[in-house]
Amino acid sequence: MLPHQIDTLISARWVVTVDHHNNVLNDHSVAISQGKIVAILPTADAQKAFEAKEHIQLPGHALMPGLINLHTHSAMNLLRGFADDLALMTWLNDHIWPAEKKHVGEQFVYDGTLLAAAESLKGGVTTLNDMYFFPAPTAQAMIDAQIRAAVSVNVIEFPTQYAVDADDYLKKGLEAYNKFGDHPLLQFTMAPHAPYTISDNTFKRMLSLAEELDMQIHCHIHETRAEIEGSLKEHGVRPLERLAGLGLLNPRLIAVHMVHLTEDEMAQLAANGVHIAHNPSSNMKLASGICPVPALHDFGINVGIGTDGAASNNRIDMFTDMRTAALLAKVGTENPEVVPASKALEMATICGAKALGRDHEIGSIEVGKLADITAVDLSDLVCQPCFDPTSQLVYVAGREHVTNVWVNGNRVVANRELTTVDEKELLAKAQSWHDKLKA
Amino acid sequence: MLPHQIDTLISARWVVTVDHHNNVLNDHSVAISQGKIVAILPTADAQKAFEAKEHIQLPGHALMPGLINLHTHSAMNLLRGFADDLALMTWLNDHIWPAEKKHVGEQFVYDGTLLAAAESLKGGVTTLNDMYFFPAPTAQAMIDAQIRAAVSVNVIEFPTQYAVDADDYLKKGLEAYNKFGDHPLLQFTMAPHAPYTISDNTFKRMLSLAEELDMQIHCHIHETRAEIEGSLKEHGVRPLERLAGLGLLNPRLIAVHMVHLTEDEMAQLAANGVHIAHNPSSNMKLASGICPVPALHDFGINVGIGTDGAASNNRIDMFTDMRTAALLAKVGTENPEVVPASKALEMATICGAKALGRDHEIGSIEVGKLADITAVDLSDLVCQPCFDPTSQLVYVAGREHVTNVWVNGNRVVANRELTTVDEKELLAKAQSWHDKLKA
Repeated sequence: MLPHQIDTLISARWVVTVDHHNNVLNDHSVAISQGKIVAILPTADAQKAFEAKEHIQLPGHALMPGLINLHTHSAMNLLRGFADDLALMTWLNDHIWPAEKKHVGEQFVYDGTLLAAAESLKGGVTTLNDMYFFPAPTAQAMIDAQIRAAVSVNVIEFPTQYAVDADDYLKKGLEAYNKFGDHPLLQFTMAPHAPYTISDNTFKRMLSLAEELDMQIHCHIHETRAEIEGSLKEHGVRPLERLAGLGLLNPRLIAVHMVHLTEDEMAQLAANGVHIAHNPSSNMKLASGICPVPALHDFGINVGIGTDGAASNNRIDMFTDMRTAALLAKVGTENPEVVPASKALEMATICGAKALGRDHEIGSIEVGKLADITAVDLSDLVCQPCFDPTSQLVYVAGREHVTNVWVNGNRVVANRELTTVDEKELLAKAQSWHDKLKA
Repeated sequence: MLPHQIDTLISARWVVTVDHHNNVLNDHSVAISQGKIVAILPTADAQKAFEAKEHIQLPGHALMPGLINLHTHSAMNLLRGFADDLALMTWLNDHIWPAEKKHVGEQFVYDGTLLAAAESLKGGVTTLNDMYFFPAPTAQAMIDAQIRAAVSVNVIEFPTQYAVDADDYLKKGLEAYNKFGDHPLLQFTMAPHAPYTISDNTFKRMLSLAEELDMQIHCHIHETRAEIEGSLKEHGVRPLERLAGLGLLNPRLIAVHMVHLTEDEMAQLAANGVHIAHNPSSNMKLASGICPVPALHDFGINVGIGTDGAASNNRIDMFTDMRTAALLAKVGTENPEVVPASKALEMATICGAKALGRDHEIGSIEVGKLADITAVDLSDLVCQPCFDPTSQLVYVAGREHVTNVWVNGNRVVANRELTTVDEKELLAKAQSWHDKLKA
């Protein structure tokens, strides 16, 4: 029998599949053809079975599913560390919002998103769930970087430099959707900013549009105590109860943060199949509180991980946030057994895929899925000895150990270098925005 | 005037001094002669004033004081990720202690300590405050790696493969002290393991020895709720009260963990000048609780940062723990203003130096101090844009951005490579211990 022709064969010391059994395979290879995973088999067999245009041999490496960042504001990469260590409203009113008002436009969003995409790819992330204004340049930057992304049809119920009112936000968002919605790397979400910035009427319209266009809904909910108190004052109910009344609680909803929750609310989220995007670093840095992840897991709720934007994290680094999610859950419950390494890795991959309605296509290394794969070099001194590659990926390795990344079978990081983005040009752009912002 | 002859001139984009005013200097150079910092001046002036044997130019870099890891068990690097996600007593009884009993000896300790020293130097750490058995091979490994270290005269009140009783532990510890105590890179500490493993009598002897030999005292205290409950049962008082009664609370004491504290205890610690080694990652991973760092600061207590050992962290990475210390303090108090970046950087440098009784010699970049210096490349894509180098060092950069490190003026990391340790040989040793431990 002649060997089967394929595009790429990746042979690694370990394949950490994140399949239903969390199989970790020793000395296995992943065969890729036309952007899809077509076989996973022992390397000795793979070399006989396949003739690959490109055969990448990665001894000492673990292959893992590409990481899925379930919540970020990519363009805000240009505001990384712009202001720190401040109370939320001081930070927003005196620093972030004035800077956004003065500087944010199409070029800012394109450049910032490209910077976030480049940082993400080099750090092993293959999908970004973005929320920001200006979806057209956002989409273009994602396509140019060749990263998978969910781009937002974003609404905030007050005028900005981007749009004047909800109608205008929706009109502009849908224009971008019409232009870019068919691109194979992109999906779009309806993204009402938050309960405190969106009216009942707009929520209803966005829900109906999400159903009509088959989109997920991406919304900040229950991030701070102040948000909940504000809703009680204004609406007489907590934000989640208000959203429930509007019909928002359903499997389309990716509820971001969800730091402050009662047992009844968790039961309600579980009963309605709502997904949660947990942002451990951001919740810590902004001092929002600790999302009760182990309790959410006990209720059977799907929880993915997001970095939030670079203005509030300040690393767009899913390795750090995967580790932090595990550690924060343990200290938050005083139970070291919760969110073990394998669960943290699921949260950062397959759970994110599920929240985006894409777990049949991405989020694990399985035959038939799209080839979104990250290779991590565990042979480095600081990763030794290695008793368990899953533990090493979560607790020890960092994004600096990522050497190769494939999105849709396309090798976007090769030997630590981006293949899709000119780094020097991007650095010059970042410097130029730095100088403008600092002025 | 002829230029002054010096050993090394380091010219960098920023010098983050961590001096009393937290001065951050632009385009400055640090001049080193005979292991000491002899001048800090604008680079334009430095090039005229000095003729250096070696002139290192680091555009885009920040120089910072070498990081001081105020609590670790270096040899346990060989047990990195050996067992995770377990309750403390299961972890110790079923995994760590049996492995230690079977494998730990002089060679294990030498190899493990060398691995920790290598990991630390490459990660910008210039001083390790170690606690473990077998101080002689520990000291030898520190010397061979050319890292500064505090080596422990360690006692635990039960027989191990190292020693049979307190007398024996002290005898062996003091032998190592007599042999290595004069080495310029080393100091020794008295290290009673913890209140639950040390008798009153042994505490008293160790305090008296510490005074006689002018050593700091390095002890785990108030790590878990169980420790405090155990002490209440056995001694009728909380551990700290017992130690106070024994005279231990004084400026020699480096109290490690201190997770669970009352207001009265904090006042007592402050009044007695006790230092604290905060271990944020370890406290999170073992689910011990959150050390009340901002309250400790309000009481004026000196708090440094430690990584703890690789079996419970699992990164010996002071960049991660510096960032985590800032983030954990914020979420623990729901106040984003506590432990700002500059404070976190102080904790990881000058506060550690103070706890070791060495703040007149190390912990900041100031003229007259020993040249323990770390260079961090902030020009990397993931560190851009850079509005504030201190924020970037704490919240954004990782140990992977460390390019050059000096200890005592000796360049121990040059362009990301260790100059003192053969990495290949060390990797082979780690692999060999992995195979033995796994068997």
